[in-house]
Amino acid sequence: MSLNYLGKIKDYRDLRHLKHIEKSRLCNEIRQMIIDVATENGGHLASSLGTVELTVALLSVYDPLEDKIVFDVGHQCYTYKILTGRKDRFSTLRQWEGISGFPKREESSCDHFNTGHAGTSISAATGYAKSRDLLRQKHEVIAVVGDSSISNGMSFEALNQIDELKTKVIIILNDNKMSINVPIGGLAKHLSHLSTNPSYRRAKEAIKSLCEGLPLGSALVAEALKKMKYQVKTMFQPINIFEALGINYWGPFNGHNIEELEEVFKLAKAFDESVLIHVITQKGKGYVPAEENPTKYHGVSAKKPNSSANSLSWSKASAQCVEKLAEKDDRIICLTAAMEEGCNLTGFKKKFPGRFFDVGIAEEHLLTYAAGLAAGGLRPVVFIYSTFLQRAADQLYHDIAMQRLPVLIALDRSGLVGEDGETHHGLLDISWYKSVPGLFIASPRDVIDLEYIFANLIEHSALPAIIRYPKGEAPFSLGRRDEDQPFEWIRSEILRQGEEVLLIGYGGTIPILLESCDKINNLLHINPTVVDLRFIKPLDLETLERLFSAHSCVVIAEETYSIGGIGEQLSKFAHEVNKGLDWIHIAIPDIYVPQGTRDEQLRYVGLSSDEVVKRVSEHFERAIG
Amino acid sequence: MSLNYLGKIKDYRDLRHLKHIEKSRLCNEIRQMIIDVATENGGHLASSLGTVELTVALLSVYDPLEDKIVFDVGHQCYTYKILTGRKDRFSTLRQWEGISGFPKREESSCDHFNTGHAGTSISAATGYAKSRDLLRQKHEVIAVVGDSSISNGMSFEALNQIDELKTKVIIILNDNKMSINVPIGGLAKHLSHLSTNPSYRRAKEAIKSLCEGLPLGSALVAEALKKMKYQVKTMFQPINIFEALGINYWGPFNGHNIEELEEVFKLAKAFDESVLIHVITQKGKGYVPAEENPTKYHGVSAKKPNSSANSLSWSKASAQCVEKLAEKDDRIICLTAAMEEGCNLTGFKKKFPGRFFDVGIAEEHLLTYAAGLAAGGLRPVVFIYSTFLQRAADQLYHDIAMQRLPVLIALDRSGLVGEDGETHHGLLDISWYKSVPGLFIASPRDVIDLEYIFANLIEHSALPAIIRYPKGEAPFSLGRRDEDQPFEWIRSEILRQGEEVLLIGYGGTIPILLESCDKINNLLHINPTVVDLRFIKPLDLETLERLFSAHSCVVIAEETYSIGGIGEQLSKFAHEVNKGLDWIHIAIPDIYVPQGTRDEQLRYVGLSSDEVVKRVSEHFERAIG
Repeated sequence: MSLNYLGKIKDYRDLRHLKHIEKSRLCNEIRQMIIDVATENGGHLASSLGTVELTVALLSVYDPLEDKIVFDVGHQCYTYKILTGRKDRFSTLRQWEGISGFPKREESSCDHFNTGHAGTSISAATGYAKSRDLLRQKHEVIAVVGDSSISNGMSFEALNQIDELKTKVIIILNDNKMSINVPIGGLAKHLSHLSTNPSYRRAKEAIKSLCEGLPLGSALVAEALKKMKYQVKTMFQPINIFEALGINYWGPFNGHNIEELEEVFKLAKAFDESVLIHVITQKGKGYVPAEENPTKYHGVSAKKPNSSANSLSWSKASAQCVEKLAEKDDRIICLTAAMEEGCNLTGFKKKFPGRFFDVGIAEEHLLTYAAGLAAGGLRPVVFIYSTFLQRAADQLYHDIAMQRLPVLIALDRSGLVGEDGETHHGLLDISWYKSVPGLFIASPRDVIDLEYIFANLIEHSALPAIIRYPKGEAPFSLGRRDEDQPFEWIRSEILRQGEEVLLIGYGGTIPILLESCDKINNLLHINPTVVDLRFIKPLDLETLERLFSAHSCVVIAEETYSIGGIGEQLSKFAHEVNKGLDWIHIAIPDIYVPQGTRDEQLRYVGLSSDEVVKRVSEHFERAIG
Repeated sequence: MSLNYLGKIKDYRDLRHLKHIEKSRLCNEIRQMIIDVATENGGHLASSLGTVELTVALLSVYDPLEDKIVFDVGHQCYTYKILTGRKDRFSTLRQWEGISGFPKREESSCDHFNTGHAGTSISAATGYAKSRDLLRQKHEVIAVVGDSSISNGMSFEALNQIDELKTKVIIILNDNKMSINVPIGGLAKHLSHLSTNPSYRRAKEAIKSLCEGLPLGSALVAEALKKMKYQVKTMFQPINIFEALGINYWGPFNGHNIEELEEVFKLAKAFDESVLIHVITQKGKGYVPAEENPTKYHGVSAKKPNSSANSLSWSKASAQCVEKLAEKDDRIICLTAAMEEGCNLTGFKKKFPGRFFDVGIAEEHLLTYAAGLAAGGLRPVVFIYSTFLQRAADQLYHDIAMQRLPVLIALDRSGLVGEDGETHHGLLDISWYKSVPGLFIASPRDVIDLEYIFANLIEHSALPAIIRYPKGEAPFSLGRRDEDQPFEWIRSEILRQGEEVLLIGYGGTIPILLESCDKINNLLHINPTVVDLRFIKPLDLETLERLFSAHSCVVIAEETYSIGGIGEQLSKFAHEVNKGLDWIHIAIPDIYVPQGTRDEQLRYVGLSSDEVVKRVSEHFERAIG
């Protein structure tokens, strides 16, 4: 496909020269570019395909340098990036040193607020709007938010404040009737009711006719809009949830009709109050596989040449563990917040439909709902990414751990996550949760330990607990003499018994340490000890005390921030045991790790066997020198 | 006042023998008991006074051992405690080893869910309800939630899921038209609209007449309720926000009319769907000073004999700093989430009404709103208690720190908080936030440093930053030679230069260490060095390296959890500098610290000069032995 339009235009400024029919064709070309790049690099395909026309209309009416357009989550920003000066670099999407899959202020002055987690856009936009008012500036502030993000509690908190603030924000509700998966909850039903209500269709006609006759920006329009507002209000039966909160509601409009959208956006510009514009879009629009299965194409993975067919991801291994346990134990309930596919829970859902709950993007509610289920006598297992549990850290502390309720958290994508970048890493779970009293934290290195720890927590211990595992593939058995025999409960496991150098890790760093062990052996002719902590809280201090006394140099490698890592906690303990110890801590430095593959990121932060060997060699050079 | 009714009844089970007029008199006696105890011990007076009749009606209809009654926040639970077996111990409210000011499962089998933070009740109740369904139990689940808590995002997330869950919860919305302060936001307006809408009054009549004629629990009632639901729906213009979410709405009812409430509660029991019952109460009811000024009497402090009139609290000192800076700098905006009085912000609000925002109990929105204001060019200062910032930890990380936005957080009540107990301590701010890259954290020991740090952050550095300070009184000048000259920026300050023993602290532990220094001097004839870290992130490692090399024993005292404390971080650094160091870390152990006075709590966890002296003496005994 030749880029007849996209090839000719430089950026959004050239949109003004295009007729609507040309813009439609431009949209097709943009769509193709998105499909090409996202299927190659991986990315959030379906959301961005749904908002091509919406974005073209936005950029035809608003000035992205002056007006502050804030995308919620940011999955839908690809068209915006292509049209705001990043067309030529778009092929580097989500790659190391390439352009981000999310809005990034440091990438373009057209990106006004960095996003990644859901529900932030309306809060950020009201902040921008109020600062405009106080600084006596004149520009528009627009939040573009999906129907699933708007059901997040934070969005409600922001909507609830808009009327009171007496400022103007334009909220564009991009309603594709889909969370990442299916629409969740009463609000989704309410929105669907609004979209099919014929009185709203009449409102659209009213807006259209109003728009046609009047010069925009004139006093006449303002007058007419006020009148229309009154008409629309009395026409609407029943009023909707947004009007109930004091926010004007216009809609619904066809999100793939550029002309109609431009008209409405112009009117919103002329209007002097906050307004929510309800736009209906189709997720995956224009790409048949994605239209037919938008959930599958919500996020697509980069093409990988060597991915083996029968490998098992940590997510899948974890879901299978719980499925197996649930067959024997009716109390087990599986919960998630819009991560059914990501956490591989469709099997569980199919097998136990009455015991599976997806609450939508509502992590706070998710955790406390789980606390209630546990208080009632069930054994909920919450499947959640580490980055999103940050949203409910207080609920974990205040509602689960403090009440000692047996909620089990299957913490997926702990550590570095690859292409999603800064906003999506799980680098805080160790430092944040290790200080929560009474919480149990485990970090298995292979599927054998994963199964053992899940089973033990369900069958024997009734503790608030986290089982932490990284993104990627799970080794079935790692560093074991006896293939399928897990080591003891709450004991660290010595995988290699050696001398002088003690290599300590857990979870994803164990393969690195085993490799390091071999390299050190070959290179320095020293035989290090390798120990897998396995349990992060409580720590097996008895084993560690013995090991600290018997070695002179300790290396701790962990895939978490160095500040607040287990390396710090153990170093304090080591002070009490062996004052002569050399201490090497390899963990994530105090930075935001940029996007790229997980391997690129691990190398960048120095989590590699080469780094371990280098640091140990330096130790011996110092010792000799 | 003799307790004619309260004296005679043992607990809620005796309510059935009382006529309504007798229950009213009982309520007066309960009210008097609450006033007596709360004004003596301190407590949440106004909320509990508003819900006396509501609680008596609840306990007349529902069985607190079988039915799960979940209070939101828990400020309103005093009557419930008095009537569920804790009458005789009620005088120990909020005292060391006394009964808690909040629901506590460990205190009574009538308390079903521990609370403290807002917005958790509907999530917990839906969890209880679903577990009842799955375990095929039969009991009611009731959430009692205030109008301010229901506007919290978490409540919305839970409300949004109820329709979908197809379970039954009874939500009692206790609407006293007050957050802690004034009602905030669009929802509050909507509720007020509902309460004055005459069609709702007709609904009440319908419910009443229905109730009179029919035997409760019969099929007839169920039939009639369904019919009523239809009638009520068609009668209501406009429908309300709860109905829009698919939840039945009944109300409003007079929350001080026991008879009416009992009727409605009985009907809700017979009804087979979820229902929200809107009850209007008066905060502070029955106590004239509290009725006239419910904000002032929201929480009352315990009577203290020695509190000096011209002492300055940390809260007040901090608010005054910002007020002073705001006079010179128009960009400074002051924000809080229902902590205007607690954080002493009324002065700021009066002086700069257009630059003060209370967003209600909406901490998540608060932080991201601040991020938006900062992105727009302003310099927002967020006043928040440490315990409530936990609710927005992700927003601090994801929206503020990651974007390097200059939002300044005035973190009040860091450390132990006294009588509010477990749920309200600020013991996680160090471990959680020290690992957030790019965040600046300071902890001044006196007002001179507080002012210096605030001014510097506003005038010179544009950093995402936390200034952390404890509950209680702020020394104006502490351990200074030059009375009013602050030490250098991002440098630790040596308050006493000594030898052998190095005492390290920050903020509230500095007075303890200065006292310890004198005691060690007298007792052991050693002259310790005392250093105030002042800055937590970044740490002044240069000064510390020098000090570690020059001393043999380090004591770190900090009012935060030991696990994740700065003591751990420094111990790792010390490993690299001086391997011979003895290491003593005095901080909060891995427990939930129970209620009591702050002094009782500090003693309990060993944060005292006696403990420091004891530990240092032991060190020297070991060194000699």
